[in-house]
Amino acid sequence: MPTLAETLYAEIRKVRVIDVHSHVRQTEPSASSLRDILSYHYFTELAFSSGLAKDHMAADLPDERMIPALVEAMARFDNTVQYGWLIDAARTLFDFPDRKLTADNWRALNDTAARKLGAEDWMDEVLRRANIEKVFLTNSFFEDLDGFDRQRLVPCLRIDDLVFHLDQVADKLSDRGGATVTDTGSLKQALAAVLEYFVAHDARSAAISLPPGFTCRAVSDADAGPLLRATLKGKDLASDERGALSAYVLYLLADLCRERRLPMQLMIGVIRGAYRHGVHQGTDIVSNRDSLSQYADLFNRFHDVTFTVSTLSTTLAHELLAYTWIFRNVVASGHWWYANVPGIIETDLRARIEALPRTKILGYYSDAYYVELALPKFDMYRWCLARVLAAQVQMKRLTEADALAVARCLLRDNAKSIFNV
Amino acid sequence: MPTLAETLYAEIRKVRVIDVHSHVRQTEPSASSLRDILSYHYFTELAFSSGLAKDHMAADLPDERMIPALVEAMARFDNTVQYGWLIDAARTLFDFPDRKLTADNWRALNDTAARKLGAEDWMDEVLRRANIEKVFLTNSFFEDLDGFDRQRLVPCLRIDDLVFHLDQVADKLSDRGGATVTDTGSLKQALAAVLEYFVAHDARSAAISLPPGFTCRAVSDADAGPLLRATLKGKDLASDERGALSAYVLYLLADLCRERRLPMQLMIGVIRGAYRHGVHQGTDIVSNRDSLSQYADLFNRFHDVTFTVSTLSTTLAHELLAYTWIFRNVVASGHWWYANVPGIIETDLRARIEALPRTKILGYYSDAYYVELALPKFDMYRWCLARVLAAQVQMKRLTEADALAVARCLLRDNAKSIFNV
Amino acid sequence: MPTLAETLYAEIRKVRVIDVHSHVRQTEPSASSLRDILSYHYFTELAFSSGLAKDHMAADLPDERMIPALVEAMARFDNTVQYGWLIDAARTLFDFPDRKLTADNWRALNDTAARKLGAEDWMDEVLRRANIEKVFLTNSFFEDLDGFDRQRLVPCLRIDDLVFHLDQVADKLSDRGGATVTDTGSLKQALAAVLEYFVAHDARSAAISLPPGFTCRAVSDADAGPLLRATLKGKDLASDERGALSAYVLYLLADLCRERRLPMQLMIGVIRGAYRHGVHQGTDIVSNRDSLSQYADLFNRFHDVTFTVSTLSTTLAHELLAYTWIFRNVVASGHWWYANVPGIIETDLRARIEALPRTKILGYYSDAYYVELALPKFDMYRWCLARVLAAQVQMKRLTEADALAVARCLLRDNAKSIFNV
Repeated sequence: MPTLAETLYAEIRKVRVIDVHSHVRQTEPSASSLRDILSYHYFTELAFSSGLAKDHMAADLPDERMIPALVEAMARFDNTVQYGWLIDAARTLFDFPDRKLTADNWRALNDTAARKLGAEDWMDEVLRRANIEKVFLTNSFFEDLDGFDRQRLVPCLRIDDLVFHLDQVADKLSDRGGATVTDTGSLKQALAAVLEYFVAHDARSAAISLPPGFTCRAVSDADAGPLLRATLKGKDLASDERGALSAYVLYLLADLCRERRLPMQLMIGVIRGAYRHGVHQGTDIVSNRDSLSQYADLFNRFHDVTFTVSTLSTTLAHELLAYTWIFRNVVASGHWWYANVPGIIETDLRARIEALPRTKILGYYSDAYYVELALPKFDMYRWCLARVLAAQVQMKRLTEADALAVARCLLRDNAKSIFNV
Repeated sequence: MPTLAETLYAEIRKVRVIDVHSHVRQTEPSASSLRDILSYHYFTELAFSSGLAKDHMAADLPDERMIPALVEAMARFDNTVQYGWLIDAARTLFDFPDRKLTADNWRALNDTAARKLGAEDWMDEVLRRANIEKVFLTNSFFEDLDGFDRQRLVPCLRIDDLVFHLDQVADKLSDRGGATVTDTGSLKQALAAVLEYFVAHDARSAAISLPPGFTCRAVSDADAGPLLRATLKGKDLASDERGALSAYVLYLLADLCRERRLPMQLMIGVIRGAYRHGVHQGTDIVSNRDSLSQYADLFNRFHDVTFTVSTLSTTLAHELLAYTWIFRNVVASGHWWYANVPGIIETDLRARIEALPRTKILGYYSDAYYVELALPKFDMYRWCLARVLAAQVQMKRLTEADALAVARCLLRDNAKSIFNV
Repeated sequence: MPTLAETLYAEIRKVRVIDVHSHVRQTEPSASSLRDILSYHYFTELAFSSGLAKDHMAADLPDERMIPALVEAMARFDNTVQYGWLIDAARTLFDFPDRKLTADNWRALNDTAARKLGAEDWMDEVLRRANIEKVFLTNSFFEDLDGFDRQRLVPCLRIDDLVFHLDQVADKLSDRGGATVTDTGSLKQALAAVLEYFVAHDARSAAISLPPGFTCRAVSDADAGPLLRATLKGKDLASDERGALSAYVLYLLADLCRERRLPMQLMIGVIRGAYRHGVHQGTDIVSNRDSLSQYADLFNRFHDVTFTVSTLSTTLAHELLAYTWIFRNVVASGHWWYANVPGIIETDLRARIEALPRTKILGYYSDAYYVELALPKFDMYRWCLARVLAAQVQMKRLTEADALAVARCLLRDNAKSIFNV
């Protein structure tokens, strides 16, 4: 007899999901090979961290050498959910019959994957099996947003470069804006042009990842102007000046999002490049030092902009619960990266479901680079959700019908209403 | 067959509770109407946060418009424990037959509530149904403590104003003390008079809510004197000076509590007024930035004063466990406000029961404004306690008898011995 | 019928454990009496904290007075796991038939304990019943490491004094090094001599406990020299200077560990002496203020030294998960002191097993002073592990065979490979 969690899972599985944050590229939404999938940093960083030398997974190694080396190393973490994602994807998408990837079975998987990944309409097939309706992208401001189904792959503007590396992208921004960015006036024009382009191309949010220590604050044009001109001339700004300029640009963008009714996705708390020896995309770390009080001014000032907030550190989880509880424009969003672990998810999710309006929780997003990996990640989350809801039903706090109403909000309905899709 | 948690709950339900912290007013311990109950900030802030406009719940709207608007909005958070409190109170106290409050059934509830709330001895009836023996109040220092049953509604001195807003309450303090407060000497006399009045009127503790960043430290009369005179003259103190004066007053009060053998209730970690747009009582937030190391000097210096400590942030929960573990005069108390969520309670409670003497844990307090809401809050806690204890029995760490001994300490016996009631 | 957790526990019980951190002394690995065991600070600090006066457990009281007083006080925390350790040890080692220690049964226990503790080969018998193969010691740098079975009691170098109190131990260090320590050159020689002696005597790690606020950073010989000379002359260093000198010595030792291929055990986050009134060894507390970012430079710079890291505060648990996840030379180690509580262990352990290679987790160490207490502590952990693994099997993430493979890594295999024993 199925457990209650299994029964709820089966119902939850029927909800057609909106994936509100990913790094899927519109031009290449699918992996091209098993190797592509295995090169996901969640696999390479654990292989490296548990002992595989980097040159055994180097880009210039042939598959025949790189894949078996990685497969052997992965056995050291076959206890993890990350490993489970690979097996789940392989079984669901590539007819893989086993529970472990080995020296003996990787070749067959490789062949099947190659064949399927090359098929026409493969992405549609993946999304159908994953029961995902839409996948949000994360597009650089200078990207071309024509030539793909924007109802299915939904454009979102990534603003990290604009906020933190304006000096490096000023030329591209000038191109997009149609005029050289030289001062606060031309900066505003260029940013407005970016937003206009994105909104005209069905973009549904702006997204940014924010480092620990970043503090939101209002900076006047008068104060920002000299900093802007200095950085555009290639001068190094002091740490405090860089912070002020970043806050200034973030507020300009928040103001444009307000005008355009675009929600902002905030991903709070990554230290970039903390590990000098790490693999590609495996050098960033979480910090326990942040507080959402650093964002209170942003939330207060732009009280008609919706902020969907993800926090990386468990030390921020309770603040996010409380801010979502009282701030009208704050939504708790997903379980991300180092917090994307069932034990952490279920703890946070239980508190969210017990204390927050079900309309203010975005359950999950894949953060994936390929749709093939969105599938097992969402399935892991569905099980977390089923277990948490089953416990609520068993403690007679919710009926099964209540529980499924929550699930529909978290996986689909809230995304539709918040992002207007 | 009942589960073990259900069996334990039934026994726990029989323990007559002491509610050691509330905002119940001796003159008006009960709500006067359904609307009064619905206006509890836990309901209005979630209604607002999930989309209800403030003017739809404005004080000057007639019930006929305000209540249905709020009821409609509340459906968006019918998944929460807060919503559950309302339903539990309605069912237990007002014969409400349903599980959801709707446009169709609120009027009948409204009528029944009006009738019952107006009945003589209604408070006694509520406390009987809630199985609560005593409710601790939180009285301002200038309140009149005559004219009510102080064995049932136990006076406690709230000292926030004295510690943090002395300039605003100096006149009232002078009145109470019988002499104008002008310097440290007259301040001490006035505070002593306050304590004398409260102790003579059966007060059983002093309570204070402390903001993040507050640091306990000894400040001499010589250092405090000039600050005191300045603030009494209406001069603005610098942030550091305000902190010093607050610490000075807190220590004066701690010394008086020592003399009077009065435990102090510390509620640590609220940022007041963090959300500019929030509803009444819905603008404060939790901070993850505090540490109990800020209180080590207080605990060390007043080692014969009992401090019952509540922390708002989950980032303080482990420190509170450890301080209660070794500090003789620290008691872990309740689960408060943003931490008053079953998922958070059960995590903390399990660790407390596993690592702390059962005599050093105050299980719960209602923090309620009306006794009608103390009822469902305590019942929510009883279920948390029953589930945590059931798990301990199932893992064979405790027998059922052990478990119930713990429950009696947490709900009743410790409150009686610590507060001498 | 046994539960799955019970079935797994029975299998886990068969794994012969390596205890990688203890304070067991090679000359006196066993307690000499029941009183010795009862004097463990976990018991005395809780007795004191819950009300027993210090003079009722003073060292100069006869057993007839001290033990009954302590036994009576301990009843107040018979709900705790700490109390459970005593009962488990008494039952497993001393034929104690009861579940509570009382005025009526302590004398019989006392007699049996005296008899057994005095028996020849008693330590072997304890380790056999505990199923512990090896116990790591924590030796001061000046200790004599001859005259005991170093395959069973494995020497480890404790470096706290060298790093934090060099001025107090300079004479002993000069003795060990064979030349007076006067400057950075002679310091390096002396430290190298210490490492040489320890490695020659089968030492398998260096261990250090680090206070909150300590920050790892490279300090040059030129900068350290004057500080070293000043401290050796008995001059007080400023706080910042002390930190620099400590970091300098730590890095010298890390470099020697690199040369000698010795892993370093870091125990992060104790405030020493925070409670002025506490009992012996009951005055230290946890801080929630630390971040592993303070150790990032150490981990990066000594990327071929393995650091097995224990964090005391739950606010560091998630950082430790993430650092172990990507840093090749970081291993998550055990559950220590104030975090050695089942509710805290199981939360962390679940996340570790879900997200980390099973080869990068050291499950547990006893931190005990006598082998008699290593027994119940490990048994408590085995139950935590069994429950966490049972839940993973029940959610179909792991098979029973997978689960037991994890258990073997955590209790034995990883210790063997990481410490080369």
